[in-house]
Amino acid sequence: MSLNAFDFRDIDPGERVLMGPGPSDVPARVLQAMSAPCIGHLDPVFLSIMDETQQLLRFLFQTENALTIPVSGTGSAGMETCFVNLVEPGDEVVVCVNGVFGTRMVDIVNRLGGKLIRVDAEWGRTIDPELVRQAVKGRHPKVLAVVHAETSTGVCQPLDDLCAIAKESGALFLVDMVTSLGGLDVALDRTGIDAAYSGTQKCISCPPGLSPLSFSTAAMKVLQQRKTPVASWYLDMSMVSSYWGADRKYHHTAPINMIYALREALRIIAEEGLEARFARHRVNHRALVAGVEAMGLSMLVAEGERLPMLNAIRIPEGANDLKVRKALLNDFSMEIGGGLGALAGKVWRVGLMGHASRRRNVFLFLSALETILKAQGVSIGTGALEASARVYDAMTV
Amino acid sequence: MSLNAFDFRDIDPGERVLMGPGPSDVPARVLQAMSAPCIGHLDPVFLSIMDETQQLLRFLFQTENALTIPVSGTGSAGMETCFVNLVEPGDEVVVCVNGVFGTRMVDIVNRLGGKLIRVDAEWGRTIDPELVRQAVKGRHPKVLAVVHAETSTGVCQPLDDLCAIAKESGALFLVDMVTSLGGLDVALDRTGIDAAYSGTQKCISCPPGLSPLSFSTAAMKVLQQRKTPVASWYLDMSMVSSYWGADRKYHHTAPINMIYALREALRIIAEEGLEARFARHRVNHRALVAGVEAMGLSMLVAEGERLPMLNAIRIPEGANDLKVRKALLNDFSMEIGGGLGALAGKVWRVGLMGHASRRRNVFLFLSALETILKAQGVSIGTGALEASARVYDAMTV
Repeated sequence: MSLNAFDFRDIDPGERVLMGPGPSDVPARVLQAMSAPCIGHLDPVFLSIMDETQQLLRFLFQTENALTIPVSGTGSAGMETCFVNLVEPGDEVVVCVNGVFGTRMVDIVNRLGGKLIRVDAEWGRTIDPELVRQAVKGRHPKVLAVVHAETSTGVCQPLDDLCAIAKESGALFLVDMVTSLGGLDVALDRTGIDAAYSGTQKCISCPPGLSPLSFSTAAMKVLQQRKTPVASWYLDMSMVSSYWGADRKYHHTAPINMIYALREALRIIAEEGLEARFARHRVNHRALVAGVEAMGLSMLVAEGERLPMLNAIRIPEGANDLKVRKALLNDFSMEIGGGLGALAGKVWRVGLMGHASRRRNVFLFLSALETILKAQGVSIGTGALEASARVYDAMTV
Repeated sequence: MSLNAFDFRDIDPGERVLMGPGPSDVPARVLQAMSAPCIGHLDPVFLSIMDETQQLLRFLFQTENALTIPVSGTGSAGMETCFVNLVEPGDEVVVCVNGVFGTRMVDIVNRLGGKLIRVDAEWGRTIDPELVRQAVKGRHPKVLAVVHAETSTGVCQPLDDLCAIAKESGALFLVDMVTSLGGLDVALDRTGIDAAYSGTQKCISCPPGLSPLSFSTAAMKVLQQRKTPVASWYLDMSMVSSYWGADRKYHHTAPINMIYALREALRIIAEEGLEARFARHRVNHRALVAGVEAMGLSMLVAEGERLPMLNAIRIPEGANDLKVRKALLNDFSMEIGGGLGALAGKVWRVGLMGHASRRRNVFLFLSALETILKAQGVSIGTGALEASARVYDAMTV
């Protein structure tokens, strides 16, 4: 227990290029806003910062939902918040599983005593709405849950058909937007999504620690009509919404400085504009894929089902997964992700999220990877940068 | 949903003197550390920052407990983490209640389906160990829980007798240290505490957002021998401990920059030394009380039962609670707290926590309060600053 305080040096994490599955690069403006002086969670100045943060979150989620707030925990806390508030023991819950985050939903539903209706797809493929339709037939699920952007595989799940099936069966439509919010067009009200959550550290480009969340009127009604108390006190949205709403009733101390950071990150998004931001994510993704394919590598996910912000690249024959990632980290101070679960050792996950979705990062990654693979004796194609450059030339960002 | 990004100005929370029930003043060094560049949660550089943070937390908790980590949520998340991991449905749980945070424990135990054994004391008084002894007689509680520093009243609960009762009855001894850790001598191993949690925004003087927590070997054994899964996925310490331990198994993305801040705040504590820090809290408390009493005001809590870091002052006859706090906030940019629950309108809660426990703050508060009360026509005694100064002269800090 005894220690020498002076054994601990000034913090110095270095300056990584964050191209993994999150966290992503955080703009200097966000870090600066985060370090503004801490004030009280009931200070009138902070209350107006909360109001502005909610306004900006509604803009990003494209919703008028009153309950649109950052949960005081990371993205996984947002996932748990949705299920713990909307599901009671014995409720039927449909969970679509095509990657790690779908299985996490399954785990949470089981812990809550929900009756699970599971619909699977191969990892790296989208969920087939027809299978979901069959699974809900004759049943009355309370919730139909799906991951929009599977960070473990890079698959983008189309939402319209699943939303229609949820409505037909009387279920709330719950969507994980941890990796998509801020990089892909997710319009809660237009699509008809009842509950959604995200994380700050992906396409919002704010440090991890908060989970933006939004509940529709229908979801709030389900919450208000519960027969059993919400299992979690900390995540009980009936109480948390009193603090974020007009009552301002103290629940728990809000993570003040993290909310400063989120507000600034959202302000940057609003300044760029949603359409421009989505377009930027698309072009950098295409430029990355063009370069990767020119090298002779292939993507895990079929064209048309890919996420722009998370690119799963098959590790080529002869390449040493760990050594490649170590070289990127040590020689280029660049982080990319490895595969999870069944995909461990089979793919690299390259993030182009928010602030990190930049031509500079695309070029740096392509040139670094080319050099490292060559040094490992992996035979690869030439002209990656040229192929990538052609995408930028052809597309107006 | 549509908005003008340029309606949102640069963040400017001002510079409050934080003398409420928390958050407390955050040192510039901590804010600076927090704004270091974000890196990945599995980056080797971050893993060593985690290790150092754990070492520093063990020093502060005065423990060798392996599971000593910051939970990714505020103090209330720490409370929930303890109960959700250690209590299964049907388990008997003793909760001591003498303020808001005891009632919060009751709420959480009920949500988890625990069998509550409740022991009450008047708000503003300590829990009588004899009542606890009677309550557990012939029973086999799984947990005996108490709040060390009741932030709602300013009462300091002695722990030794309650710990002995817990051991005799075979219960784990669980202590809320949200407000005491970093300001009062809390020695987990010496006292025999099995589970403890705190918040970063009180005597640690770091922004809110994390909850330092520690489990003894006995608590870990109870966790490992559970028959039912932990109700919360996010707070499941059997999984979280894998990430913080040697396995480094990914669970959820850690709140990276908040951990930078906590590490720096802990480093400042280690530099000061625990004994010096506790002495500083004592002397500033006594100097505050001397001044308050010279004004003719009285403390809610009896001498000998008071916390040094949270001072509940009875609002004198003729003073307008809200107007006084508003004048402190607007004219002096100083935050103090009002009363909670039954004490609303009856007391002011003045924090002297961590970095905020300073002679400068004591004098500023006394002189501001004196001026404001006089302006409101409240008749008060003279010589508050002189009485306070005499305490500093008499005591060696």
